[in-house]
Amino acid sequence: MMPNGYEMCWLDYKKHCDVDKNELSKWFSYICLFDPTDEFQVVKEELAIFVTDFLGFRPRFFKVFPKQGRHVLIGKLSDLPVEVNLDEQLSEEGFVLKYVKKQDAEFVIITGISAAGVLYGTFEFINRVRVGEDLRKLNVVSNPKIKLRFLNHWDNLDGTIERGYAGKSIFFSNNKILLNQRTKDYTRLIASIGINSVVINNVNVRHAALKLIEPAYLKRLSQLAQLFQRYGIKLFLSVSFASPIHLGGLDTADPLDERVKKWWKEKVKQIYDYIPNFGGFLIKADSEFNPGPHMYGRTQADGANMLAEALEPFGGLVIWRAFVYNCQQDWRDYKIDRAKAAYDIFKPLDGQFADNVAIQIKYGPMDFQIREPVSPLFGGMEKTNQILELQITQEYTGQQIHLCYLGTMWKEILDFDTFSKGNNSFVKRIIDGTLYGRKNNGIAGVANIGDDPNWTSHDLAQANLWTFGKLAWDPDEDVKKIVEEWIKLTFGDDELVVRNISYMLLNSREVYESYTTPFGLGWMVNPGHHYGPNPEGYEYSHWGTYHRANWEAIGVDRTSRGTGFTLQYHEPWRSIYDDIHKCPEELLLFFHRVPYNFKMKNGKTLLQNIYDLHFEGVEKVQEFIKLWDELEGKIDAVRFSRVKKKLQLQLEHAIEWRDVINTYFYRRTGIKDEKGRKIYP
Amino acid sequence: MMPNGYEMCWLDYKKHCDVDKNELSKWFSYICLFDPTDEFQVVKEELAIFVTDFLGFRPRFFKVFPKQGRHVLIGKLSDLPVEVNLDEQLSEEGFVLKYVKKQDAEFVIITGISAAGVLYGTFEFINRVRVGEDLRKLNVVSNPKIKLRFLNHWDNLDGTIERGYAGKSIFFSNNKILLNQRTKDYTRLIASIGINSVVINNVNVRHAALKLIEPAYLKRLSQLAQLFQRYGIKLFLSVSFASPIHLGGLDTADPLDERVKKWWKEKVKQIYDYIPNFGGFLIKADSEFNPGPHMYGRTQADGANMLAEALEPFGGLVIWRAFVYNCQQDWRDYKIDRAKAAYDIFKPLDGQFADNVAIQIKYGPMDFQIREPVSPLFGGMEKTNQILELQITQEYTGQQIHLCYLGTMWKEILDFDTFSKGNNSFVKRIIDGTLYGRKNNGIAGVANIGDDPNWTSHDLAQANLWTFGKLAWDPDEDVKKIVEEWIKLTFGDDELVVRNISYMLLNSREVYESYTTPFGLGWMVNPGHHYGPNPEGYEYSHWGTYHRANWEAIGVDRTSRGTGFTLQYHEPWRSIYDDIHKCPEELLLFFHRVPYNFKMKNGKTLLQNIYDLHFEGVEKVQEFIKLWDELEGKIDAVRFSRVKKKLQLQLEHAIEWRDVINTYFYRRTGIKDEKGRKIYP
Repeated sequence: MMPNGYEMCWLDYKKHCDVDKNELSKWFSYICLFDPTDEFQVVKEELAIFVTDFLGFRPRFFKVFPKQGRHVLIGKLSDLPVEVNLDEQLSEEGFVLKYVKKQDAEFVIITGISAAGVLYGTFEFINRVRVGEDLRKLNVVSNPKIKLRFLNHWDNLDGTIERGYAGKSIFFSNNKILLNQRTKDYTRLIASIGINSVVINNVNVRHAALKLIEPAYLKRLSQLAQLFQRYGIKLFLSVSFASPIHLGGLDTADPLDERVKKWWKEKVKQIYDYIPNFGGFLIKADSEFNPGPHMYGRTQADGANMLAEALEPFGGLVIWRAFVYNCQQDWRDYKIDRAKAAYDIFKPLDGQFADNVAIQIKYGPMDFQIREPVSPLFGGMEKTNQILELQITQEYTGQQIHLCYLGTMWKEILDFDTFSKGNNSFVKRIIDGTLYGRKNNGIAGVANIGDDPNWTSHDLAQANLWTFGKLAWDPDEDVKKIVEEWIKLTFGDDELVVRNISYMLLNSREVYESYTTPFGLGWMVNPGHHYGPNPEGYEYSHWGTYHRANWEAIGVDRTSRGTGFTLQYHEPWRSIYDDIHKCPEELLLFFHRVPYNFKMKNGKTLLQNIYDLHFEGVEKVQEFIKLWDELEGKIDAVRFSRVKKKLQLQLEHAIEWRDVINTYFYRRTGIKDEKGRKIYP
Repeated sequence: MMPNGYEMCWLDYKKHCDVDKNELSKWFSYICLFDPTDEFQVVKEELAIFVTDFLGFRPRFFKVFPKQGRHVLIGKLSDLPVEVNLDEQLSEEGFVLKYVKKQDAEFVIITGISAAGVLYGTFEFINRVRVGEDLRKLNVVSNPKIKLRFLNHWDNLDGTIERGYAGKSIFFSNNKILLNQRTKDYTRLIASIGINSVVINNVNVRHAALKLIEPAYLKRLSQLAQLFQRYGIKLFLSVSFASPIHLGGLDTADPLDERVKKWWKEKVKQIYDYIPNFGGFLIKADSEFNPGPHMYGRTQADGANMLAEALEPFGGLVIWRAFVYNCQQDWRDYKIDRAKAAYDIFKPLDGQFADNVAIQIKYGPMDFQIREPVSPLFGGMEKTNQILELQITQEYTGQQIHLCYLGTMWKEILDFDTFSKGNNSFVKRIIDGTLYGRKNNGIAGVANIGDDPNWTSHDLAQANLWTFGKLAWDPDEDVKKIVEEWIKLTFGDDELVVRNISYMLLNSREVYESYTTPFGLGWMVNPGHHYGPNPEGYEYSHWGTYHRANWEAIGVDRTSRGTGFTLQYHEPWRSIYDDIHKCPEELLLFFHRVPYNFKMKNGKTLLQNIYDLHFEGVEKVQEFIKLWDELEGKIDAVRFSRVKKKLQLQLEHAIEWRDVINTYFYRRTGIKDEKGRKIYP
């Protein structure tokens, strides 16, 4: 049973733009499908759903090549009865959408080298039809630039989701694996945005999850993997580095111990017996109380390579997270800087990791704050496969109560120039493999979905999932274009709808940042659940995330004169970040300890800027509400009022943020807002 | 199966002082027990355990009156074959211990009016024997001064204990009621200190606990109640005010609704069918998300009296907690003062409560902080039964990691003069019923025990349970005497052992206070679990517990010029608390907003005093460790090292407290310690 109000996000084909359906129907009455090896079942299914929902009739599929009329023509490039001239090389997962006229017949061709490519082409084709593109002008060759396009689910087997804000897990309940209509819909949804790799369980592998790689679970996982495979997706699992102890009865998980190696080899073989197309492991080791090779005096490379050796014969990968740091720091120790940890630990290992190991690196050196500099590790490892880890789920960014579109942030990260090999050493060129010439690179997003009827709780948070897929496919894509396409597919192409939602989305990250922790400050949240303001919530904790505000200044000096974090960057960043007058102001408090009376570029003090941003941020949320209200009647009532409620709650909580943060600084300094606005004393 | 290292605290009769056992044995070879109605089974059992463990032989009991020799003579006053002249009136639960010589025979008589009285006398007699008192000088008449001597257990049916720091529940596991050897030992333990009323389940009644008053549970509860009864104890239960909804299928719990009244009457009758000596209900209503009469626009008296009416025919009581306040306060609302809530709500209802209702009032107006003024409600209600609620479990007072003996604090509370009827209107005279002439008064302690082998995790925390019982029996008793008796019964009477432990216990509260939150500040703990320093942990929360520290001052002005809380006290307290120069300094920050540079009586500023106390507090813990170390070899190794470990952890955490609090104030003010000690910047 699907929950009340169940939706398929951008795949709801009944929603569409202003198109001439009669005219369009002509293309779909006769769909030619060339499928000699019977690989296109899901393509047929998807087109059937589309045509039925969109045009109102069930399409038929033929293998005979027609001589006249308009037709959709589908098949692998090698199987097509017409020649398709390509302007560009097709890659394994790429696709072609192309209009071809042949004598009296017109064709829109969807093709590719692989079934997955054809499926991706089908989704893209459907999207273009729905937004009313002229099919006779179709001429697209599209290849994914990034090889591994991952979703990471932090789902626990009891059905809870760590950092999940949209209900319970769709994969697990009561320690059982779910396989139902929703699983299938999920697969369609993520295939439609080009995801090809999925980790279904939490990186913190505990309790029942330890046993996921045991036969009792593997059997059912193999069914899930088969479903995934039909949509071009590989199943990965998070596993515990201590599995040989938990499951194998060994007294060690030392990666250099022969018994441990043997256990993993046998275990991997067993997994592949059940799941021949198994993707591999995601590992959170030596991190936040998870076991790892450091426990045995071994390096991260020792640990990863041991697993890699076991997976290699089967083509499996080890995705090894770089989120390793001392999470038992003493706040009184001013020498340790958590921001430096990943680079300090992994940089010296560059070149030591096996070819089927990829290091998965969080975008920033801390932990998914609303603004961080890009991790210097991206510019630091030339001989190591790298995966950029992003968080689609809004842990520190408003927990799907606040509107916080992340595409703009991700785009900044992808476009960040590390200067590791001179100009244009962009992060996106590292993870697409072109900069260092490595093969197993990728991008991973921690999923923001759960079993809520609309998948993401906040309807507009669907845009984050959509955008993640689009940027994973092509990190050079324009975010505004991505957003507009999503709006049209999701809410229709009314001009005001597109304009207002687009404005809201594209500005929402800066708005959230302004009323929470601007200038790279971060962390002023309640410990544990990470929601809502708590200016000193982490100040005396063991997590290593301090701002050390006193009566005159705030922030940690991470320059060469301080913790030395800036030295992990290539020039010119090193010098730029090192200089309080050159440092980009949005990162000022990340890199510098700054007096409240520091004059910023706009001539105002740091403190006055903090006050201003907090007042302005709330005003911006009020503006969002006004813009949303303008859409009443142009959007279905259910979603209109659901988003409205979220925005109202956001406003309430933005006011809370404003007042707490302003009061906090006022109580510190005794300096009033120069405009005399209300700050609680 | 008892856990490893299982102990019976002060009832371990193998531990004793330096006594002549041969001489003592003569008294116990022939115990005369007059028990015509067979009520003294547990007295016999206790004496049998005692003589066996202490003297090494099994005693025999006779009903024949001997003509010569030394004997223990036991029976109700009315059944004794000798006349006992009393210097004082015996009350129902009182007892007599008296040496009588009759011709050639010598007797030590244990007697009372009731079986419970005789049992209490037996425990007291055993204690006196163990510490070597001269039996020929015995001449004791002892009546409990306080009628209701309650333990409140905050045990949940899943086995967890809210604010429990000594393991799991001994009453519940997996939603089942436990009845085993430990239950019996528990009953002995608390009867030995005079407890006569027990609430076994958490005041927050949720989940399975809602069903405790259903037949499925009542059947087993009746067995527990029978066990309790043999030891003079009545079983009470915490119940949800919304039970008619949860269990009765009604759509309301409105206390004035006839269906609700009828439901409760039938429910109470059902309970008494199972448990004829059932004590009654403890109710947390309209408090921290628990339902109550306010939900229906009714008063607390409406709610309590409705239940009282149902219980009255059976002699049952309603214990109604006064812990009612707005726990959804906006920190920006400076007018609300949580400290005023109980008085504001209950004082106007004085005289309206039924005779079998008692209002249970926490000792302070906030919530069990290490130092609070006594709740003004005690001086505010002359026509209402009152129960003083104390916390034996160390929620805010160190969670049985820190040594924090609470007897000294309780003594201050009991000795507090409310001046409600002129001089000597002590709290202890309110709850012993003499001041206002009310009948159903009492004292309640939230228990500090769990299923740890030593019951309280910290061995020295047993002293708190012991002291609670002793003060409940006689609030005029001297704390030093109470402590010394406990030490002797628990660790023996080595002079150094008694001296050092006594010193540690009697000073521990002030030490804990000094390195945490002195001067009545309170609350600077981590939210939720309430352990460890977090100076602004509650500063922007909804709990109404703020200090509003800024760059120049700290504290809430609760005077007549502020929230007006001081006006709830009688003179002279009203004037004393209202005046920053007269206010007892240990409560300065509870009542006043005070600049850091305020000169205190010792000539130092408030800030310097805060620094000093924090440094000195840590030094005192170091002194405790030194004193404890002196006892090595004089105390059994298991307990010695267990306490040692606790003290070492306490030291570590005291240092953490010192550094966090000092740094917090230094960062606020920029003012250094005048003695130049280390404060982290």
